[in-house]
Amino acid sequence: MKVTVSRKAHFNAAHRLYRPDWSEAKNLAVFGKCSYPNYHGHNYDLIVSVTGKIDNETGMVMDLKKLKELIVKEIEEHFDHKNLNLDLPEFKNLNPTTENIAVVIYNKLRPLIKPENDLSVTLYETPRNFVTFAGD
Amino acid sequence: MKVTVSRKAHFNAAHRLYRPDWSEAKNLAVFGKCSYPNYHGHNYDLIVSVTGKIDNETGMVMDLKKLKELIVKEIEEHFDHKNLNLDLPEFKNLNPTTENIAVVIYNKLRPLIKPENDLSVTLYETPRNFVTFAGD
Amino acid sequence: MKVTVSRKAHFNAAHRLYRPDWSEAKNLAVFGKCSYPNYHGHNYDLIVSVTGKIDNETGMVMDLKKLKELIVKEIEEHFDHKNLNLDLPEFKNLNPTTENIAVVIYNKLRPLIKPENDLSVTLYETPRNFVTFAGD
Amino acid sequence: MKVTVSRKAHFNAAHRLYRPDWSEAKNLAVFGKCSYPNYHGHNYDLIVSVTGKIDNETGMVMDLKKLKELIVKEIEEHFDHKNLNLDLPEFKNLNPTTENIAVVIYNKLRPLIKPENDLSVTLYETPRNFVTFAGD
Amino acid sequence: MKVTVSRKAHFNAAHRLYRPDWSEAKNLAVFGKCSYPNYHGHNYDLIVSVTGKIDNETGMVMDLKKLKELIVKEIEEHFDHKNLNLDLPEFKNLNPTTENIAVVIYNKLRPLIKPENDLSVTLYETPRNFVTFAGD
Amino acid sequence: MKVTVSRKAHFNAAHRLYRPDWSEAKNLAVFGKCSYPNYHGHNYDLIVSVTGKIDNETGMVMDLKKLKELIVKEIEEHFDHKNLNLDLPEFKNLNPTTENIAVVIYNKLRPLIKPENDLSVTLYETPRNFVTFAGD
Repeated sequence: MKVTVSRKAHFNAAHRLYRPDWSEAKNLAVFGKCSYPNYHGHNYDLIVSVTGKIDNETGMVMDLKKLKELIVKEIEEHFDHKNLNLDLPEFKNLNPTTENIAVVIYNKLRPLIKPENDLSVTLYETPRNFVTFAGD
Repeated sequence: MKVTVSRKAHFNAAHRLYRPDWSEAKNLAVFGKCSYPNYHGHNYDLIVSVTGKIDNETGMVMDLKKLKELIVKEIEEHFDHKNLNLDLPEFKNLNPTTENIAVVIYNKLRPLIKPENDLSVTLYETPRNFVTFAGD
Repeated sequence: MKVTVSRKAHFNAAHRLYRPDWSEAKNLAVFGKCSYPNYHGHNYDLIVSVTGKIDNETGMVMDLKKLKELIVKEIEEHFDHKNLNLDLPEFKNLNPTTENIAVVIYNKLRPLIKPENDLSVTLYETPRNFVTFAGD
Repeated sequence: MKVTVSRKAHFNAAHRLYRPDWSEAKNLAVFGKCSYPNYHGHNYDLIVSVTGKIDNETGMVMDLKKLKELIVKEIEEHFDHKNLNLDLPEFKNLNPTTENIAVVIYNKLRPLIKPENDLSVTLYETPRNFVTFAGD
Repeated sequence: MKVTVSRKAHFNAAHRLYRPDWSEAKNLAVFGKCSYPNYHGHNYDLIVSVTGKIDNETGMVMDLKKLKELIVKEIEEHFDHKNLNLDLPEFKNLNPTTENIAVVIYNKLRPLIKPENDLSVTLYETPRNFVTFAGD
Repeated sequence: MKVTVSRKAHFNAAHRLYRPDWSEAKNLAVFGKCSYPNYHGHNYDLIVSVTGKIDNETGMVMDLKKLKELIVKEIEEHFDHKNLNLDLPEFKNLNPTTENIAVVIYNKLRPLIKPENDLSVTLYETPRNFVTFAGD
């Protein structure tokens, strides 16, 4: 009997969509105003979902206080008020599209979640644009 | 490695739930105030989700700017400020329930999404009533 | 010592912006797609606010259960699932702009609120377009 | 061709996370401030989703008016303005974690939904903490 | 030139509407299910607004980080996961209606805001019921 | 008889809080992580409100289509996907705090609104931090 528990978090960051191996003109043609050179930014909203069996002792799949602390420490403190392109080593050679940011967040959290539980990450770049990655 | 990208859109339309082959009384009995003869309306919210592999070049499953333009052109301009029963050929012989509208939207978008990608449509008639169709 | 208490409600209705003393062409020029002949519709959200002194006995400005019942009876049952232009006598000679609907709602509620209390009405036509009327 | 229809509802309740077979100290150590002895409470938001085929006659998977009435009668009237630990027999021997409440709601609704349709329940304890249970 | 800065916060608490000098029956007649004896609860949302001149040095009316810390320390830590009737001295002889809670919060914050600035407090008991108090 | 009409808009931008006449250390001490050197960003939400008399001809205070176009042209196209500190002349010598951005927006819109109407601007930096300026 499997249940999914979810926790919502957020961070504010600057980024631009940009491939250094392309010219500015090609970046602009492909990524539009998302590639403007001086960066823009977002209030990213993040939903982290963990699926597994309810523990008989606690009545929980995973303590949401601990999931919250884990997200604060591993994700919010790492991403918040940062420039994704300039400040984060993960995006030194990776274009910070919403898809790629979601995969990076998934990969940071996956080793910290029990292996028998499933993990899914939904990242909102804006209330209208969002991405889900579940590791497969 | 598959990721789902989603785009939110909206349109405002009038409709009534009504089968012309039923009497007004039977329509009222089955559909309640949703069948009132002079129509009512909704701010429909739409979430279109596309699932596929991340393109190595762009870091995207599908350019959300293009998905946005496609939704504007195919759905918003077609449905917005219309009377679904009277103005749209799709509902000439189809009752515009939220379920049927979602299927119509799915069928309009499906040929425009790459065949190797999955498509899902969620349509909110109100913030409390909504429907999801993924084509199967 | 004055406090404002507010109650949120909603109704779904069809309408068009239209002056019968103008041609269809002039209606279209002034009101755009809001004047399309077969109506469109909205999920209207309504906030009703009453400002007054806290009653010492109850600790309330006005019982929010009673405010809720009053809004259900006078506004929701009257407007919900209706065509504002065709079904409601208030708009027989009044264009159902958001401004005019807010004034009509205010005028229906004002006699039912204690005269020593202030009344304000905020009406959302969409989450992006809204109007406030406080009677002066 | 399967479609999912969803209905949102809500109720307000008090609870505490607590196992009577544990000491107050152990309850506090495991459940933190959620185990404070005098209870705290939440505005629970509930999404009930039913998946099945569209009925050819009505154009609906399930009449959302009937789903709404069923949720009002079976869930809202049972849970609203109650103390989950003290007032509800379901939690006499069951810790009212969000996971367990979602399972209880699922089990109350499952016999009332057609057996050929799937049921899923999502329960928000807060806008940031939520749980989904689909019966398997 | 005056600007209003606002900060949103929240806390979860249990309460009941109840006057000990009234019988249970009278409490029930006046306050309805809000007076049920075993308490219910809410996710209270709080907006604190401070109005004043922009400081030339900082470009701020008041540092929102400091306003946030002040709300955490004085309000959230005091109210969160508590039973308002049983745990908080402020409501020993005061019925915890939304109106009265808003006034209590205002009075706790007022001495901590610069006297030349105005203060306003909006408290949501639910997304549909809320109260504003600005000290006059 | 005065009514307020409001229109919601949004733009995404990068910024940092920073005074060039202060050291990096002093900027960090006063503005915290909001002064990090490589910028961060936000999804800014903007509400523009215009208060005036209802025009008898149109039933409107101001055509919300025109208010929308005005905000798109003067604000969204100017601010969206920009770095406020680097790209916008308005902030060459002005720290882009939410307060100062709101005043800049007000000053750009004020000459475009009829002088007999009142104007108010509310700017959300995040859903939890927001600022209102009404010109006095």
